[in-house]
Amino acid sequence: MATVLKQTPVPHYVSSKCNGDVQERDQVTKLVAQVSEKDGKVLHPDLLNPRLLEAQYAVRGELCLRAEELKKTKEIIYTNVGNPQALGAKPLTFVRQVIALCAAPFLLDDPNTPLLFPADAIERAKKIIASFGTGGVGGYTDSRGNPMIREEVADFIQARDGHRPSTEHIYLTDGASAGVRNVLQSIIRNEADAVLVPIPQYPLYSASIALYGGKLLPYELDEASGWGLDLDALTRTVAAARAEGYSVRALVFINPGNPTGQCLPGEEVARLVEWCAQQRVVLLSDEVYQELVYRKDRPFTSAHKALMESKYAQTAELISFHSVSKGTSGECGLRGGYHVFSNIHPDTVAQFYKLSSIGLCPNTIGQVVVSTLCNPPQPGEPSYELFAKERADELASLSRRAALVSGAFNSLPNMSVVPTEAAMYAFPQVHMPPGALAAAEAAGKKPDVFYCLAMLEEAGICTIPGSGFGQAAGSQHFRTTFLPREEVMEGFVQKFKAFHINFMEKFGPKKKQ
Amino acid sequence: MATVLKQTPVPHYVSSKCNGDVQERDQVTKLVAQVSEKDGKVLHPDLLNPRLLEAQYAVRGELCLRAEELKKTKEIIYTNVGNPQALGAKPLTFVRQVIALCAAPFLLDDPNTPLLFPADAIERAKKIIASFGTGGVGGYTDSRGNPMIREEVADFIQARDGHRPSTEHIYLTDGASAGVRNVLQSIIRNEADAVLVPIPQYPLYSASIALYGGKLLPYELDEASGWGLDLDALTRTVAAARAEGYSVRALVFINPGNPTGQCLPGEEVARLVEWCAQQRVVLLSDEVYQELVYRKDRPFTSAHKALMESKYAQTAELISFHSVSKGTSGECGLRGGYHVFSNIHPDTVAQFYKLSSIGLCPNTIGQVVVSTLCNPPQPGEPSYELFAKERADELASLSRRAALVSGAFNSLPNMSVVPTEAAMYAFPQVHMPPGALAAAEAAGKKPDVFYCLAMLEEAGICTIPGSGFGQAAGSQHFRTTFLPREEVMEGFVQKFKAFHINFMEKFGPKKKQ
Repeated sequence: MATVLKQTPVPHYVSSKCNGDVQERDQVTKLVAQVSEKDGKVLHPDLLNPRLLEAQYAVRGELCLRAEELKKTKEIIYTNVGNPQALGAKPLTFVRQVIALCAAPFLLDDPNTPLLFPADAIERAKKIIASFGTGGVGGYTDSRGNPMIREEVADFIQARDGHRPSTEHIYLTDGASAGVRNVLQSIIRNEADAVLVPIPQYPLYSASIALYGGKLLPYELDEASGWGLDLDALTRTVAAARAEGYSVRALVFINPGNPTGQCLPGEEVARLVEWCAQQRVVLLSDEVYQELVYRKDRPFTSAHKALMESKYAQTAELISFHSVSKGTSGECGLRGGYHVFSNIHPDTVAQFYKLSSIGLCPNTIGQVVVSTLCNPPQPGEPSYELFAKERADELASLSRRAALVSGAFNSLPNMSVVPTEAAMYAFPQVHMPPGALAAAEAAGKKPDVFYCLAMLEEAGICTIPGSGFGQAAGSQHFRTTFLPREEVMEGFVQKFKAFHINFMEKFGPKKKQ
Repeated sequence: MATVLKQTPVPHYVSSKCNGDVQERDQVTKLVAQVSEKDGKVLHPDLLNPRLLEAQYAVRGELCLRAEELKKTKEIIYTNVGNPQALGAKPLTFVRQVIALCAAPFLLDDPNTPLLFPADAIERAKKIIASFGTGGVGGYTDSRGNPMIREEVADFIQARDGHRPSTEHIYLTDGASAGVRNVLQSIIRNEADAVLVPIPQYPLYSASIALYGGKLLPYELDEASGWGLDLDALTRTVAAARAEGYSVRALVFINPGNPTGQCLPGEEVARLVEWCAQQRVVLLSDEVYQELVYRKDRPFTSAHKALMESKYAQTAELISFHSVSKGTSGECGLRGGYHVFSNIHPDTVAQFYKLSSIGLCPNTIGQVVVSTLCNPPQPGEPSYELFAKERADELASLSRRAALVSGAFNSLPNMSVVPTEAAMYAFPQVHMPPGALAAAEAAGKKPDVFYCLAMLEEAGICTIPGSGFGQAAGSQHFRTTFLPREEVMEGFVQKFKAFHINFMEKFGPKKKQ
């Protein structure tokens, strides 16, 4: 079927959306050049929303596709996704007991239930079910989430930060991602609205900014200073963008870092909060890894705490994100999370409420997980000891695995890594010899992709090339999780070392940097 | 703080998004007039995405706010939201047993578990957990949902329609709403892209089209013919819009209807499918109420079945939506749903995959609900009888309630309703006498809002005025669910009748239409 091109002018009432301005109306008229079908398809991929087509998000990147192929004949160690339970992490027992009872409230009155569930899980489930009102977890909630659970989040933040946000400013979401998307959709008006995003970054941000038609303004984290922030460079970036006509609206910061595995010292968080306030930029603080911090001398400091203890406590705009997916509970599949508004205009908060309500409400089981994690069993309660032990054991194990992979990477020639101190990732730099760069070019691959594909082929390890997150020009990295269980990670280290040494021997002289 | 206006031209690389066309680049340059803050707020409500500001979605409409006020002193009957369990509907026991066991897999090996759970629920939970792979419901799934559950959906559709879609074309979602939003976001390129939406409609559609910057093209359902479709009128609407330069991309159809409570006869579904094929319009078929059909002589016919039995079986583009929220299970809070692509270009399906993946995956418990409803207990299995009885009892009760409210409305003067034959709503028309119209105008209210507010004040019944869904010019309606339990619905009818008769006596002569 032939392609149909329409170039008729748009009638006047279309442009009424553009506030009736004549200049804007003429622009709309010119913009219309609608192809309505191609090759017999209305939804031909060439005719979709161009912002969707532009958005980069490797669903099944080259590494992933090749791993699925290889899996048929050899064992693959997957370290490409931050998905703890899929790699053997166990859920926290109390969390799951409470979910089971909330889902099956008819168990609560069964005399056999205490044979299977501890008393505090039963009591907790009763309390949570009652807080949802008639219908328990089976009804829609307020689009912002169950009010009692939002109170528990506020209590959790008060205990963590010494400052309590209003429950009116806490919105529960289906994981942190849903909140990030809603916020970016609300902030971005057009392609002149810029959002500062760290390099390297988590691709949710680049994909969402593309999807909503904004401008991603990259700022590099400084690998040499342990993925630190260079605020002077940030200031220059913002000034240059503003001189070019961009409205620099927000800065994304991921702390602890993904993919960098760093935890920003409290004084640096404070400096960042002040910088954002002074630059009139909204801070979007992604703090989903806050529970996983391995250096006792560098505890997590939330942007909320830093803000509340700054001179901008009553003015600087901040939105903080958290999730149930990325702590010791690792409940990725259950999709729970929340975000907190600080100093956001009340009518803007109301607009976020409207946006949330279009999706009706976050799933109730995810809300229950938020409740159990923000309000965990307390000392003296039947579930306390097991809960505390499960969390501490997993955190200690992750800490050992972080040290294991950092140590291994730094023991090798042509390789260096900022030791992982938080989260679930390492982001080592590979110093590729000229022979390897030439071989990559000859193969038509980016150098980091070439290296990761070789690792997959030879060691059966599936990672993500650094170019998927962004990296300083000319540098080569990859991201690995250390989520496989400890015995598997030992094998990872041995296989990886053998591969890397062989790769470097094959392609060039050894060089320890 | 003063308002800062920026009108600097945008640099050349911004407009590279516009395919480098000089004319388009100039338009982008002119469009930049960014206010970056107002009253000291970067996220001032006036500076948010204008499409968000335009989107209409009554979170807390006037009726709802007044009901919350009145609730403090009198009992309110809420019939405003399709939220069955919040009004006393019980969840299906088997569904919840399976969820509980999937959430707490450590129960599966406990010798006491068979005291609380039937054998087939235990077996089913084991099968579902295994299908999720290591980590069970705690890991991210494929962004399209668990492959085994998508197979179960395909089986369900085959049993319903006699035709089986590919599992590659079935995407699980967090309720149907999430799927509708993703689809509209993908289809709409700019404000010249139009989507046909019925009047009256469910406001998800109008809100989402506004949010993604498209054009809503309304088409009226014909109340006189039982909310039927007038395809000739539709043809004229499309021709006029196309002559004006719109690209008419898709048609939304809700069957069974919300708020109309109608079930379209199979032959009319077939005519609609053919019409869409001939008009080169993608059919978006919202079929979330398909289980709730009360007229045995008018069973539900899916657009998928009609398509597969038409001459366009291999060509016409269709996306069908379903949900776990709106059948006898009424699992609104658990957020499960799916959509099915028919004859959608494979590269377009891949773009939907990418979009889904940005949100990682639909929540796993919602996926489990889809599994249990598409693959329910079979005759001879321990849970079959209870499951079948719970479903049949709820359907019979809803059928009685539908007849009760339709009969009551049609027995009254100045009122008529197309008898509800499906879904959970009635959408009666109120023939308001001149005195009532004048009183509404004097009170500064729309007539339907005036009537519904009076109903709330006098009878304590909370409904939604017809203007929230759209209605033919000059007509007045309201939407009510019949979800309160039967004993409450009896009270609803008595209170409503007394209110309505009193209202009509107060404002004018009786007139039975």
